[in-house]
Amino acid sequence: MLGEIIAIGNELTSGRITNTTSGFAAHHLFEAGFDIYAMHTIGDTPALIGEALNRALGRVDFVLVTGGLGPTDDDLTTEAVSEALNRPTMPNLEILSLIRKHLDSNGDHPPGSLEKLAWLPEGAETLSPKTKMAGYQLIHGGKPIFFLPGIPHQMRTLLIEQVLPRLSTWYKGRQLTSAQRVYKIFGKPESEINNKVKELALSDDVEIGYYPVFPDVHLSMTIRGDNENTTDLLARKNGHLIRDKLGTAIYGQDRETMESVVGGLLLKENKFLSVAESCTGGLINHLLTSIAGSSAYFLGGVISYANSMKTSYLGVNDNLLERYGAVSEKVATAMAQGMRERSGADISISVTGIAGPGGGSDDKPVGTVFIGLANEDKTVVHHFIFSGNRYEIQRLTAQTALDIVRRNLLEINHN
Amino acid sequence: MLGEIIAIGNELTSGRITNTTSGFAAHHLFEAGFDIYAMHTIGDTPALIGEALNRALGRVDFVLVTGGLGPTDDDLTTEAVSEALNRPTMPNLEILSLIRKHLDSNGDHPPGSLEKLAWLPEGAETLSPKTKMAGYQLIHGGKPIFFLPGIPHQMRTLLIEQVLPRLSTWYKGRQLTSAQRVYKIFGKPESEINNKVKELALSDDVEIGYYPVFPDVHLSMTIRGDNENTTDLLARKNGHLIRDKLGTAIYGQDRETMESVVGGLLLKENKFLSVAESCTGGLINHLLTSIAGSSAYFLGGVISYANSMKTSYLGVNDNLLERYGAVSEKVATAMAQGMRERSGADISISVTGIAGPGGGSDDKPVGTVFIGLANEDKTVVHHFIFSGNRYEIQRLTAQTALDIVRRNLLEINHN
Repeated sequence: MLGEIIAIGNELTSGRITNTTSGFAAHHLFEAGFDIYAMHTIGDTPALIGEALNRALGRVDFVLVTGGLGPTDDDLTTEAVSEALNRPTMPNLEILSLIRKHLDSNGDHPPGSLEKLAWLPEGAETLSPKTKMAGYQLIHGGKPIFFLPGIPHQMRTLLIEQVLPRLSTWYKGRQLTSAQRVYKIFGKPESEINNKVKELALSDDVEIGYYPVFPDVHLSMTIRGDNENTTDLLARKNGHLIRDKLGTAIYGQDRETMESVVGGLLLKENKFLSVAESCTGGLINHLLTSIAGSSAYFLGGVISYANSMKTSYLGVNDNLLERYGAVSEKVATAMAQGMRERSGADISISVTGIAGPGGGSDDKPVGTVFIGLANEDKTVVHHFIFSGNRYEIQRLTAQTALDIVRRNLLEINHN
Repeated sequence: MLGEIIAIGNELTSGRITNTTSGFAAHHLFEAGFDIYAMHTIGDTPALIGEALNRALGRVDFVLVTGGLGPTDDDLTTEAVSEALNRPTMPNLEILSLIRKHLDSNGDHPPGSLEKLAWLPEGAETLSPKTKMAGYQLIHGGKPIFFLPGIPHQMRTLLIEQVLPRLSTWYKGRQLTSAQRVYKIFGKPESEINNKVKELALSDDVEIGYYPVFPDVHLSMTIRGDNENTTDLLARKNGHLIRDKLGTAIYGQDRETMESVVGGLLLKENKFLSVAESCTGGLINHLLTSIAGSSAYFLGGVISYANSMKTSYLGVNDNLLERYGAVSEKVATAMAQGMRERSGADISISVTGIAGPGGGSDDKPVGTVFIGLANEDKTVVHHFIFSGNRYEIQRLTAQTALDIVRRNLLEINHN
C-alpha cells in the first residue's frame, strides 16, 4: 500500500522552520508496512494544495496532509480541500459546542476565528473530538485522507494514536510486513564496513543501506514481505550474520545511542563514572544525563573551561599547565586522575583540546584533542586531531570519549 | 523567480533520515530573494525523478536536486536525468583524471564504481571540480538546474559557494528583494505577543508570522519588493515599532541565541560566569561553550549529579541535603554560592530539579526546578514547575536559567 505526504505552510517553503513531521510520519508508516511514494512541502496556496491532493489520490492508496488547519487567516487547507474535492464545508456540531464552551470560559480570542475550526469538508470525521487538537479524516473515492495539524507534538500524537490504527484497519491484511534493523557504528569508514558486509552471503530479500548520520554511520537492513513470520525470521538470521562479522564495531542497534550503551555497561558492571571536560564544555555530561536513570551509574563532572578551574577543582598542577599547556597529554592525565580521586568514581574521563575556530597553532592545530581515562588500574591518554567546525569537533570528541569508555568496559583496545 | 527543490533517497521516504537539506536550501534561497514553489522528497526511482524534474521545469524558473549522486548502485539521479532530459551521459575528463589519481594512491575502492562519478549528462558543468564533492549544473530550456550531493555539509557548502552566486548572476535583477527579521522570545505565550503586535500600525507590505520553535516563540517580519532600498527602509522602520512595543521580551534577533546574547552581555560588563548543574546535567555549560570565544566570560562549572558531588565540589552542607532534599530552595542557594566562591566568578547560577520521568512525588512532582543566581550583592532562587518530557524539562530549565542571567545583567525583574 502506497501513500503520499503533503506538508503545508509558508514557514516551511521559506525555510524558516525545518519540516520534521513528514519524516516522522514516513518512518512510522514504513515501520507499519506502508510505503511512501513521495513527500511534498508546499505553501499556504489553495490551488497548489488542491493540485497536490488530486494528483496523489490518482496514484496512491492513502494521503496524509499536515498543516494549515489553525484558526488564523493564513490557514487555508480545509478551504482548499473543500474546493478540490467538491465537498462544501459544514459545521461539526460537536466541535462547535466545544469551542463555544471554551469561549465562554475564556474570552481572549475573537469568536469568529476559532469557530472556523468547526467547519469541515462534507463527510469529514474528526480524529480526536475530545481534545483541543484539530485533525480529521475523509474517505474519498475509497481512499482514506488524513488531515493533521502542523504543530509537531500534536501531529505525532494523532499519527500514532489515530492514523496508524485507522489505516491498518482500512487496509487490513493488504499492507506488507517489514522488519528493519539499524546498526550503529562509530569511527569506521563506510567503505570498510561495506567491504566486510559484501563478503557475507545474505538472503536475497535483504536490502542493505549505508547512511552517514553524524557522527555515526548507520547500516540498515530491511526485509519486506507478505508474511510476518518469514520477515522476522530472515531479519533475525541475517542480523546475526552482520553482527558476527562486524563484532564490537557495532556499538548499538535501533534506538540505542552511544550514551545509552555506555550507561548499560556501567550499570551491568556496577561502576560509577565522572567526567572532566574542557573543550567539550559539558556536552559529554549532558549526553550521559540525557538518559533517564543515569544517576545509577553517573556521578557528574567538572567543566574546567578556565585553567583556574583545572587547578582548583581537578588538582592539576600549575607547573604542568605552564610547561605543557592546557592541551597536552600531561594535563589530560592529571585531569582524569584528579576527577577520579575527588569524585570517588570507578572510572573518570577527561577531555582537553582546541575546538576552534580560534586558538590553534602550528604545533597544536584546531581539532587537537587529548582524551584521558583513569580507572583503578591505570590512566591512558589518547591523542586525536579531528577536523570540522566547532560543533563537529566537540561532537566527535564527545562520541570518541564515550566510545573509549565503552571499549574499556568491553576490554577492547582502542585502535 | 520561482524554484522547486527535489530531494532524492530511499532513506528519506522511509523516514530513516530526516531531510534537513531542503529546508536549509529554501531558507537561503528565500533570503536571496527567490521563492520556493514546492519541495519534493522521493525515493531512488528513475521514473519518479524524471517526472518530478520535468514537471518542475514546466512551471518554475530553476530546480535544485539533491541526493543520489554517489558511487553506489542505488545512486540513480544522473541516470534518471539523462533519460528524462534526453542527454546521454559522457565522461568528464577532469573528474576522471582526479578519480584515477585518487585510486592510484589508495586502492581500497573498486575502480568501476568511483569512475561512475565522472559520467555526467551532456552539457553538465561541474560545480566544484577541485574538491571531492559531486555536484553539477545543467542549463535546460534556458533554466538552470543544480544537482548537489545529499550529504548535508557538502550540500550546504556547494549551495552557499556555488548555487546562490550562479543563480543570482543568471537571474540578475529579476529576483525580488526581501528583508526579514526574526525576533526571538522566550517565556511569553504566542497570544500575548500577538495581541501586542496587533496594536501596532505596521506598514501594509509587512507580513508577520508566529512560530513556536521550542523552547522559544519566533516572530518573523517579512517584506518583499522590487527595490532593495524600500524593503530595507520598511524593515528598519517596522522593526523599530516591534522592538519598542515588545522591549526586553525579545531576547535576540535573527541568528542570535539565548547563549550568545548572555555571552555578549557578560563580555560587555566584563563579568565571568560559572554554572552548577544538577538535573540539566551539563546542558547549560554546553550551550554556553557552544559559542566560540566563550572563554572570555565563562569559567566552567560543576555537574553535581550525585549528592556527594554537591557536598564535595560545591560545599553544600550534608544537613541541608538531608533536611530539605537536593531539590530545594536551600540547596539551590548553597550550590550557587558555593559555585561562585570556589570558582571566583562574578555571577554563578545553580540548577536543581526533577527532570523525570521517575523521581517525582506529590510534594515535588516531575518538573519541579529551583534555579539560583548568586552575585556580589545577593543570592536569589526561583521556583518553577515545568511540564514536558525529560528533554523538554531539561531544555526549558536551561533556557530559563540563561534568561535569568540575561535579566540580571539587564536589571529586569524576572516576572
